[in-house]
Amino acid sequence: MSMKIEILDSTLRDGAQGQGVSFSLEDKINIISALDKLGVSVIEAGNPGSNPKDAELFEKISRVKLKNARVAAFSSTRRKGIKACDDKNLKAILDSKVKTSVIFGKSWDLHVKSVLKTTPEENLKMIYDSIAYIKSKGLEVIFDAEHFFDGYKSNAEYAVKTLNAAASAGADTIVLCDTNGSAFPDEVGEVTKLIKEKFDMTVGIHCHNDVGMGVASSIEAVYAGATQVHGTMIGCGERCGNANLSTIIPNLQIKRGFLCVPEENMAQLTRTAKQIAEIMNVSLKNDMPYVGDSAFAHKAGMHADGVYKLPISFEHIDPGIVGNERHFPISEMAGRASIVHKIYKFAPDLNKDSKETVEIIEKLKEMERRGFEYEGAEGSFELLVRRHIGKYKKFFELDHFRIIGGQPTSSENSASALMKIIVDGKDEITAAEGMGPVHALDCAMRKALEVFYPALKEVRLIDYKVRVLNPKGATATSVRVLITSTDGESIWTTVGVSRDIIEASWIALVDSMEYKLIHDMERKN
Amino acid sequence: MSMKIEILDSTLRDGAQGQGVSFSLEDKINIISALDKLGVSVIEAGNPGSNPKDAELFEKISRVKLKNARVAAFSSTRRKGIKACDDKNLKAILDSKVKTSVIFGKSWDLHVKSVLKTTPEENLKMIYDSIAYIKSKGLEVIFDAEHFFDGYKSNAEYAVKTLNAAASAGADTIVLCDTNGSAFPDEVGEVTKLIKEKFDMTVGIHCHNDVGMGVASSIEAVYAGATQVHGTMIGCGERCGNANLSTIIPNLQIKRGFLCVPEENMAQLTRTAKQIAEIMNVSLKNDMPYVGDSAFAHKAGMHADGVYKLPISFEHIDPGIVGNERHFPISEMAGRASIVHKIYKFAPDLNKDSKETVEIIEKLKEMERRGFEYEGAEGSFELLVRRHIGKYKKFFELDHFRIIGGQPTSSENSASALMKIIVDGKDEITAAEGMGPVHALDCAMRKALEVFYPALKEVRLIDYKVRVLNPKGATATSVRVLITSTDGESIWTTVGVSRDIIEASWIALVDSMEYKLIHDMERKN
Repeated sequence: MSMKIEILDSTLRDGAQGQGVSFSLEDKINIISALDKLGVSVIEAGNPGSNPKDAELFEKISRVKLKNARVAAFSSTRRKGIKACDDKNLKAILDSKVKTSVIFGKSWDLHVKSVLKTTPEENLKMIYDSIAYIKSKGLEVIFDAEHFFDGYKSNAEYAVKTLNAAASAGADTIVLCDTNGSAFPDEVGEVTKLIKEKFDMTVGIHCHNDVGMGVASSIEAVYAGATQVHGTMIGCGERCGNANLSTIIPNLQIKRGFLCVPEENMAQLTRTAKQIAEIMNVSLKNDMPYVGDSAFAHKAGMHADGVYKLPISFEHIDPGIVGNERHFPISEMAGRASIVHKIYKFAPDLNKDSKETVEIIEKLKEMERRGFEYEGAEGSFELLVRRHIGKYKKFFELDHFRIIGGQPTSSENSASALMKIIVDGKDEITAAEGMGPVHALDCAMRKALEVFYPALKEVRLIDYKVRVLNPKGATATSVRVLITSTDGESIWTTVGVSRDIIEASWIALVDSMEYKLIHDMERKN
Repeated sequence: MSMKIEILDSTLRDGAQGQGVSFSLEDKINIISALDKLGVSVIEAGNPGSNPKDAELFEKISRVKLKNARVAAFSSTRRKGIKACDDKNLKAILDSKVKTSVIFGKSWDLHVKSVLKTTPEENLKMIYDSIAYIKSKGLEVIFDAEHFFDGYKSNAEYAVKTLNAAASAGADTIVLCDTNGSAFPDEVGEVTKLIKEKFDMTVGIHCHNDVGMGVASSIEAVYAGATQVHGTMIGCGERCGNANLSTIIPNLQIKRGFLCVPEENMAQLTRTAKQIAEIMNVSLKNDMPYVGDSAFAHKAGMHADGVYKLPISFEHIDPGIVGNERHFPISEMAGRASIVHKIYKFAPDLNKDSKETVEIIEKLKEMERRGFEYEGAEGSFELLVRRHIGKYKKFFELDHFRIIGGQPTSSENSASALMKIIVDGKDEITAAEGMGPVHALDCAMRKALEVFYPALKEVRLIDYKVRVLNPKGATATSVRVLITSTDGESIWTTVGVSRDIIEASWIALVDSMEYKLIHDMERKN
């Protein structure tokens, strides 16, 4: 049996310290759900003591049932001169109702003296007291030994004493952190091996990427006996980021036979990475190992040729194993298996050679070239499939709309929309105001449609995302709009792309309404 | 004395195989010049046999005097069944007038049989003949053993034979290539050590990043005796890219005492990386080790605090060594200390208790509550500070603008904007069309302003980002717009927030223009 490696994802804690990263409460819940589905072991969700928004998150999360992961709350050790039971950060961990905690403490003597400004002995007590207190309340404790490798270089004896303090207070795991990201893999391997020999318990590794070797160092630590690996799913984090879990997981599992996530979930790796990038509103780096769009792209003619003859000639793994796809950027021959698989969901009677399947794939490729992306917009994808298999009905037609906006304005409603639609030969013209052109459009559209379809009153938009494609085109570039809607029962997401944000929003709004009307109609039949 | 490591940059050859990368002749000359100034040893400039444009490049380059680097031309070994002296690719190397050549040949038996479709013996002869021929013409030959590590795993004896063929034909350097990027650092180190024991000559290493360890593997090879390292300056290259030289160089030189580039040039590393990114028209990744904009950015309050007290507490090197800068992003996580630090840059006479400082911090907090974020918008931050310390001038006033848009439209320009502005009591009213409301607004604004300020013609927008804040509000929610502009010399980013995307864009556009005008004015004074 493969040796189990516990993966701890810190996207929501350490990752949130990356430049330009910020999460809403709903973003956090969605990321936790995606990570749980992939099957990581621990999700470090936040620091409830220092961030009141995180306290709200833990309140919500305590009511969600996860399949694979334990959710952990993060805190420093107690402050100096205060009893553990009186420390507000430790109290916040208990209040958060988690069963797993991550407590970090200083292990570098220099930090103890110059940043914490206390004595080495008091720091050891701070570690011991904090962990003993949290353990006494029945929680699992993972101890993050901050700056462990720098500390070990500066004063090995003291660094080990901090681990001793944690272990003797009952910590379940001690984690060696390369907080400044400066350690080289050989040092990490060597030190981890020494620690593993001294401590007969779970040892973890937490690397950063400041010397570009966060992945390699994490793997060296595993070779040396570490069985818990910390990082972030797409490598985000302060400065140069945390060790990238979407690289570490397949490296360890596919290439070295360790078990990081349930075997059957490995094919979800790419989707999970993309989903997290989408929620963070960043583009997943094209060249990210395993999960990036270019990870299996063969541009050089010679390479593409080699791959046609024999995939392993220029591919280190079959991209399907991690749910990614081979790409030939010049010939634009995208892999089809996953698309076909999706079509079956709505049209189980089709096979991969059916005329409709071929047409749908052609249409899909054309739309993707225009910037549409159906990964996060299953609602629009379903409509696209339905249009080709005859399970579709047009509920209304647009005659035209006009938007008028500007500055300065006399009210919060800075834009107005006028709209004329036609339903079964009857037309309806109306107008509405809104906070900006998209909101005005949304309001006018509902006002016109509800005359014919009162059920649309149930529909609320709950998410609206805008992504600028090819930002180099500046204000003349295409934008992709994703709209998530709910009628209180289901939730669906639709997509629109255009150089005009209003048109992109219109396309996504039309899909959203049609989705609702088609599903209502089928339910009645 | 430090051991010398030869750095071979392949940005123009292997790097050009990255997705979305293409170079003009002038781009190539500029990149060669930047790399030479930094002090790399060899610049692999292209493949003259397979690319006629490269032949033109070599013609030009032969007349340029370089200070540090030798320029190399790249070619495969002769084709099967042809004499070396009749092979057009080898002939192109001689025609290119370079003194250094890189010849690549197959070292993986599987490739010989299934891709090259020849016998193992013929492949050895192809290697021998090609190198002997080029050597007989007096050129230096670097032999790239393609797929060496995969080849060694498959058939070690044969892989070594290919190196033997190269060495006995007179190759100056044999290079172990991990062409598919799948080797782990431990394998690379082990195999390189064995080869170095067998071959008493210069051994090179050429890694890719498909398992995210291109840097670590290159360094392991150097530990094992390799003294030539191949890669690309900012890591671009096919699939997941080549080993990143801007990480490898400081890792080896600053941290391990090898000599890769002249000591006095290390402070040019960041500038060189940025220059190459600029020429390639890509954004240098923020989180790139050593040279990225975030590489020394401290966002978490605790970290920023630590760095103030003692830089090494959260920095693995002084950023100045590689020509980079410490950075305290302005955000809610940042402590007061880092904001004050930023204000000093523009108003060095203020201290943390000055009335203006307190006011600026209050204003900043208020703006952040409204959704502004200055972390990535230093341009707008500077204007905010200037407005409070009297170093600000209003260059124009908006009387009003109106936007009209809608669907369907008869042309690509789906929106029009009308604008009236006032400068020193004179007004200007004009109108423009655009692809969407924001583009129309942008065009109308420039048209009106350029009447008074012709210097604004130099300004181009190079990036446009939209982030929906609190997406729960759906189409009525606030959006944050970030606009990056350049006048060919500086680059600045500005921010706008509003519930109306047009107003948000307007705010960011105004800041962008004011930033340019203020800086121009101060330069003149």
